[in-house]
Amino acid sequence: MKILVAPDSFKDCLTAQKAGEAIRNGIEGLAGNWDIQILPMADGGEGTVEALIQVTNGRLIETEVFDPLMRPARAKFGILGDGKTAVLEMAVASGLELLEEKERNPWVTTTFGTGQLIKAALDEGCTRIILGIGGSATNDGGMGMARALGVQFFDKSGKPVNRGGGELSRIVKIDISGIDPGIANCKIEVACDVTNPLTGPDGASAIYAPQKGADKKMVQELDANLKYFAGLLKGQLDKDVENIPGTGAAGGLGAGLLAFTRADLHSGFEIVRRETHLDEHVKQADLVITGEGKIDYQTQFGKTPMGVCRVAKQYGKPVIAFAGTLGEGYTELYKLGFDAIFSIVDKPMTLKEALITAPQLLERCAQSVMCLWIAGVENNSSA
Amino acid sequence: MKILVAPDSFKDCLTAQKAGEAIRNGIEGLAGNWDIQILPMADGGEGTVEALIQVTNGRLIETEVFDPLMRPARAKFGILGDGKTAVLEMAVASGLELLEEKERNPWVTTTFGTGQLIKAALDEGCTRIILGIGGSATNDGGMGMARALGVQFFDKSGKPVNRGGGELSRIVKIDISGIDPGIANCKIEVACDVTNPLTGPDGASAIYAPQKGADKKMVQELDANLKYFAGLLKGQLDKDVENIPGTGAAGGLGAGLLAFTRADLHSGFEIVRRETHLDEHVKQADLVITGEGKIDYQTQFGKTPMGVCRVAKQYGKPVIAFAGTLGEGYTELYKLGFDAIFSIVDKPMTLKEALITAPQLLERCAQSVMCLWIAGVENNSSA
Repeated sequence: MKILVAPDSFKDCLTAQKAGEAIRNGIEGLAGNWDIQILPMADGGEGTVEALIQVTNGRLIETEVFDPLMRPARAKFGILGDGKTAVLEMAVASGLELLEEKERNPWVTTTFGTGQLIKAALDEGCTRIILGIGGSATNDGGMGMARALGVQFFDKSGKPVNRGGGELSRIVKIDISGIDPGIANCKIEVACDVTNPLTGPDGASAIYAPQKGADKKMVQELDANLKYFAGLLKGQLDKDVENIPGTGAAGGLGAGLLAFTRADLHSGFEIVRRETHLDEHVKQADLVITGEGKIDYQTQFGKTPMGVCRVAKQYGKPVIAFAGTLGEGYTELYKLGFDAIFSIVDKPMTLKEALITAPQLLERCAQSVMCLWIAGVENNSSA
Repeated sequence: MKILVAPDSFKDCLTAQKAGEAIRNGIEGLAGNWDIQILPMADGGEGTVEALIQVTNGRLIETEVFDPLMRPARAKFGILGDGKTAVLEMAVASGLELLEEKERNPWVTTTFGTGQLIKAALDEGCTRIILGIGGSATNDGGMGMARALGVQFFDKSGKPVNRGGGELSRIVKIDISGIDPGIANCKIEVACDVTNPLTGPDGASAIYAPQKGADKKMVQELDANLKYFAGLLKGQLDKDVENIPGTGAAGGLGAGLLAFTRADLHSGFEIVRRETHLDEHVKQADLVITGEGKIDYQTQFGKTPMGVCRVAKQYGKPVIAFAGTLGEGYTELYKLGFDAIFSIVDKPMTLKEALITAPQLLERCAQSVMCLWIAGVENNSSA
């Protein structure tokens, strides 16, 4: 039997690769003739860089960037095995997790560091960039990102405007003449699973700015600023992006990427699916195993286990999922194709204890599940 | 497919019957043609009365007894469906759980209440008693039990000695002439899964008295007292019980039962197995499901899931176990026949949360497991 082990990472405790290894450790040796393959997965969010460089035999590059408050920070990105494709996660340069709770303020936070990551990828000779844009701390419409690539933003007195979503309304002139020439030859695939437009009641500011530190008044002003910024992009660059679904992702970075670069928006999981040749692996498997730190009702909306499940079902393969936490409504997922879903937690315990012992928990749970699989098959054979 | 659901109780949250119902709720409807039978199990400990009266369609009787400190207390026991067999748990009359931590003192605690339970069963016309002796608070060699049945214990001045393990050394004369006449016609099957002798380094006092409140010095004196008491039983009643395995159970109650009644010692699970006709049910099943609140390395020593597993394996049936807590060394149980073992806990949570939500957790876990079973069988059928 061929078993494909294709999990996402388990947040704060296991990378996708380590999760795969724990599962393999639990089940190898249970039957003599099993061929177990690990294919680390991701959905465009955290862990995407690591999964894709693992699968393609790529490499990690560490560089220095400015964080959302323009403080120097180290950040890593990946070059895939083809040597021409970079994979970036904006969160490592412009993410909310880089800030203390009290530092969160989308009026001043910038995507400059994300632009630096793109620049670093161009400097490595990359002609394709996969960019995950989850977890941003920003609401600047991608102004910071563009500035890091050489675009200039002037106020009415001809001086550069300052950084942040609060400054967008002060821009009167955008000058793209100095943009990095590599941008013209680089395709950017943005991993984006939200469909919010740039502005309005479903826009970047209204939906996401509150969790980034904006109060009600600031949300209104940020939204007005993005609307003004969209007008500039249309008027000066002939880029009409305001209402394209997904341009509201990452505080409007989606809009900035469409306006200033050769970008298009994709489902994060679909990018990973393609890059890892998931379909080919599933076709050859008799059983597919996936998992993620948490599985619940939300899992169906673009998360890795749901993606892996859909591919498995497309080829008629059984699929089992593991999670640390089974959250509200997870049993609904059975209707969507999952054959069985298990929590790896094996007794009442704290989250901390679960995180620390996650490898052992996952290993043992995988063992139990595959022992059951064997028993079911043997029972059926003898009946 | 016929599925036999034969769990023990899940301590502090689910009776065996309720556990069985939760499992059935989780799996009924997954396949159209499943015949699911619930057979509540026990191992002679807590829950034995409830399981046996459930299975045999018996009844509960409530009576008044004296607790280990001779305070009045209400206690229940069962009459099985045959109307002639009583099932008693000493813990409800003489158990450690009836005392506050600071009240624990095997020098003074008595098995009198357990004798009252036996008496009540005789008064109901029972000619057979199944007696579970786990969880005692006592170390009195069964003196209190015997006294409740009419045996008298005199000191050197001809007065009755007081109660408790501390008084045994003051006995000079045992008078059994007043013992309840029903005892002569009643077979007592003691559910006892320990093999400790009455005295010595593996005896009742050395091994169990510390958890009942004895310090090191008291342990030595209690042991000497039981040794003296054994001498009286031999000298005055011609009952040589001191070194019989199991006489050290329940603070020497095992010895007292052998000396004063028509008792013999049995594995608790084996009694339940026989009374519930477990073997017949297993023979007719295609799959056996069991479980208990906790499953760990200790489970192999006389606990219900191990017993159910052994019977299942004897007839070549697959067996799955559920537990709230999977404790140390539980994976060793795979070598002993279990096909798969699962914790019902589905996320990091407190014990309290697990206890409150146990029915739902068990139901959902059973669902996952049987969904997997179906997937395995279907996959094998199509391969």
